[in-house]
Amino acid sequence: MTLLTKLREIVGDSHVLTDADTGKYDHDWTGKYKATPIAVIRPASTQEVSDVVKACAASKTAIVPVSGNTSLAGGTYAKDAVMISMERLNDIREIRPDARIAIVGAGAVLSSIHDAADAHDLVFPLTFGAKGSAMIGGALSTNAGGSNVVRYGSTRGLCLGLEVVLPDGQIMNLMSELHKDNSGYDLKNLMIGAEGTLGLITSAVVKLFPKPRAYATAMVAVPALTDALTLLNDLQAATGGLVEAFEYMDALYITDYLTMYPKARTPFADAHDINIMVEIGATAPSLTDVQPDGTVPLISLLEETLAPMMEDGRILDAIVAQNETQRREMWERREAAGEVMLLRKPMINNDICLPVDKVATFFERIDLRLADLDPKALYSSVSHLGDGNIHFLVFPTKDDAGLVDLLTEAVEEVVLSLGGSFSAEHGIGLTKKPSMARRKDKVALGVMRAVKAAIDPDNIMNPGKVLP
Amino acid sequence: MTLLTKLREIVGDSHVLTDADTGKYDHDWTGKYKATPIAVIRPASTQEVSDVVKACAASKTAIVPVSGNTSLAGGTYAKDAVMISMERLNDIREIRPDARIAIVGAGAVLSSIHDAADAHDLVFPLTFGAKGSAMIGGALSTNAGGSNVVRYGSTRGLCLGLEVVLPDGQIMNLMSELHKDNSGYDLKNLMIGAEGTLGLITSAVVKLFPKPRAYATAMVAVPALTDALTLLNDLQAATGGLVEAFEYMDALYITDYLTMYPKARTPFADAHDINIMVEIGATAPSLTDVQPDGTVPLISLLEETLAPMMEDGRILDAIVAQNETQRREMWERREAAGEVMLLRKPMINNDICLPVDKVATFFERIDLRLADLDPKALYSSVSHLGDGNIHFLVFPTKDDAGLVDLLTEAVEEVVLSLGGSFSAEHGIGLTKKPSMARRKDKVALGVMRAVKAAIDPDNIMNPGKVLP
Repeated sequence: MTLLTKLREIVGDSHVLTDADTGKYDHDWTGKYKATPIAVIRPASTQEVSDVVKACAASKTAIVPVSGNTSLAGGTYAKDAVMISMERLNDIREIRPDARIAIVGAGAVLSSIHDAADAHDLVFPLTFGAKGSAMIGGALSTNAGGSNVVRYGSTRGLCLGLEVVLPDGQIMNLMSELHKDNSGYDLKNLMIGAEGTLGLITSAVVKLFPKPRAYATAMVAVPALTDALTLLNDLQAATGGLVEAFEYMDALYITDYLTMYPKARTPFADAHDINIMVEIGATAPSLTDVQPDGTVPLISLLEETLAPMMEDGRILDAIVAQNETQRREMWERREAAGEVMLLRKPMINNDICLPVDKVATFFERIDLRLADLDPKALYSSVSHLGDGNIHFLVFPTKDDAGLVDLLTEAVEEVVLSLGGSFSAEHGIGLTKKPSMARRKDKVALGVMRAVKAAIDPDNIMNPGKVLP
Repeated sequence: MTLLTKLREIVGDSHVLTDADTGKYDHDWTGKYKATPIAVIRPASTQEVSDVVKACAASKTAIVPVSGNTSLAGGTYAKDAVMISMERLNDIREIRPDARIAIVGAGAVLSSIHDAADAHDLVFPLTFGAKGSAMIGGALSTNAGGSNVVRYGSTRGLCLGLEVVLPDGQIMNLMSELHKDNSGYDLKNLMIGAEGTLGLITSAVVKLFPKPRAYATAMVAVPALTDALTLLNDLQAATGGLVEAFEYMDALYITDYLTMYPKARTPFADAHDINIMVEIGATAPSLTDVQPDGTVPLISLLEETLAPMMEDGRILDAIVAQNETQRREMWERREAAGEVMLLRKPMINNDICLPVDKVATFFERIDLRLADLDPKALYSSVSHLGDGNIHFLVFPTKDDAGLVDLLTEAVEEVVLSLGGSFSAEHGIGLTKKPSMARRKDKVALGVMRAVKAAIDPDNIMNPGKVLP
């Protein structure tokens, strides 16, 4: 029996897609990668995933998982491989409000989990621009971050348990609902961020949080990034850690955003180099209940924290959202980044992370380096500044592979000189493999290779990704 | 050259302890395990650790790491092994207040990190009874939890970076200071909780947090554990997640505590079955500043949350600490648990974790099971209830291995029937290996063994621990 016949027996004819039917899956949304999978398989259950993997493993056929296909690093590129789409494992199996957990299938779209939590006055805080199509399985596989990490912690921390189909088709049950579980090695976190190279995530237990009863959201322009860090730390102290988002957009990003959305408003009357979108959220009635004078304490708290910095010039301008429409406008400006960044080409998409107290130094140093290498190159930043996570886009003056390499390496060098990482939240996929080879601790790379060989000895799980 | 001669060359004669000089290290503090190490080596630097490991690896000599030696699971039992003590790697290398991180050696005692952070008005929240002798290296190796996980997250989440000496002596640099770092597999979390079986942690980067400017602490008696969960969720909602500790002590524990400390006070005028110590902490001046009428909003908030539950009988009694002395008294009562539990023998120390909404059901079910197996056995609980982490001590009526096994297995069965774990925060060590063999997902055990064999092929790193 051929592999495809066997796969059709497992999932049914209509869920084994070949040739033109694979069109939706065979390229990434940035248009950078286009490949030719053997077939796209859409299993309906963990058992079917297991059976599909066993069938592929028997013939050592490569497997590439795909969920929302919103990777920014070519994670789903599939050449001579069977793609397994998780889209039918999209059940939101259980919401347990008292335990503050949700149990979901890998194919659940982030925004559907948001909605399900919201119905219980809870939030699932993992969110980013692609939330309407990204699925939890892919988000966990890449340890995708987003805008709320500063408040709710990393994606790893948001996940309590996993179910994983291993490269030999065995189903590994790590579906813990627990806040403490010291029963051996941390295989959950090993699978999260492994980008499908060690196994396929099929289900997850994720944490939910009380839904803020009010938000206070503002756009703030500051003269220097060190002032932004002061603002962040002051706000955290004043609110007791209620900063939900602390996002940085530079002047070029605002310009490009307005080019793409000409009807959108500018954040301020004047253009500024450093535009911060800050949001704080609260559940405590003492902060969220409207006072007799009509004010909301949370908003007053934000305004009171901004006021002294405005007086002494460490804030140039600030606009506090007065209603949900204005708040949505601020979020839309930020969340358009994934599309806006495709406006200029060629483009180098550096997804870097720095210690939060070294971000300003990064920009000073990279300025000098880029001025040397490609003086007229433009660059733009949209960043989760609260985490030190900078999406630093460089637009070289010509589409020259040598120049792109030089610029990429210059960014990496400055990042590493400050203790940063060349990869923050998009993952390695194919795009960042040269950086892994150059920059990752060699001893750590050796351990990763040993782990990969131990768990996937035939190298069939998303081969060619992550490890150089 | 013999191994000991080589080790003396590396660390100096005075730091290679043999025979009677190993007395301080060769037994655990509960008195359960006593072994005979070949020698205890006290390296002064990561390089020395690396050289010592290389020397041992050359002759395939087993290595057992030891830091504060406060394991509750026999993690440092060393037979025919070289013990490597981390005590001289005790430097607090750097505190970076703006970045809210500390960089420390593995031998830094927890309370010394607390003090160093406190000097900057910050806290390092990892804390438990043994904080005055436990070292960060051991705490990370066992993923030790403690009382503040409910507020600040797991020990894994508190650690940003690690330096690890691998079984072949190579030094792996994972000393990230970053909040997001997606550069390959999560080796940091693989090493945390591996109890020294995959490598030796020599340094760490840990997170610091703003120091609360005020605490509100109370003892609360409730009629049922479900009321305790209501109290926890109400308090989290009212304060916006400011619950720092939510600890449960049962009546027998209070009795035994008073036996050991006869001068201590009872928590309430009447004895109660379910005694909760709750603490909330705040940094926001709006909650911590003394008001014109002399009240502190944080304390008012606690009292206002307790009040309706007292009125409708879901709280039986409550005492709010009026000053730091009363607060300390509450904490001392809780933190004496490590010693108090040794009062009765024989004792089975179950360090279990349950979904927080299933703790009450656990006690209902285990009551019935124990009544069958050993009707006159006593049991006692001191628990991090906010995490679902129950230290459930069973005192059988006779010291009979068969009975102990029966009771242990009964606890495990009830725990697993509710989706819990037989090991929450003490680790596996030697003590919990039978439970691992019985209860851990077999597929996960297979992956753990494959990972162990890949990283430590000669099985020299803390052999015989964790993996059955």
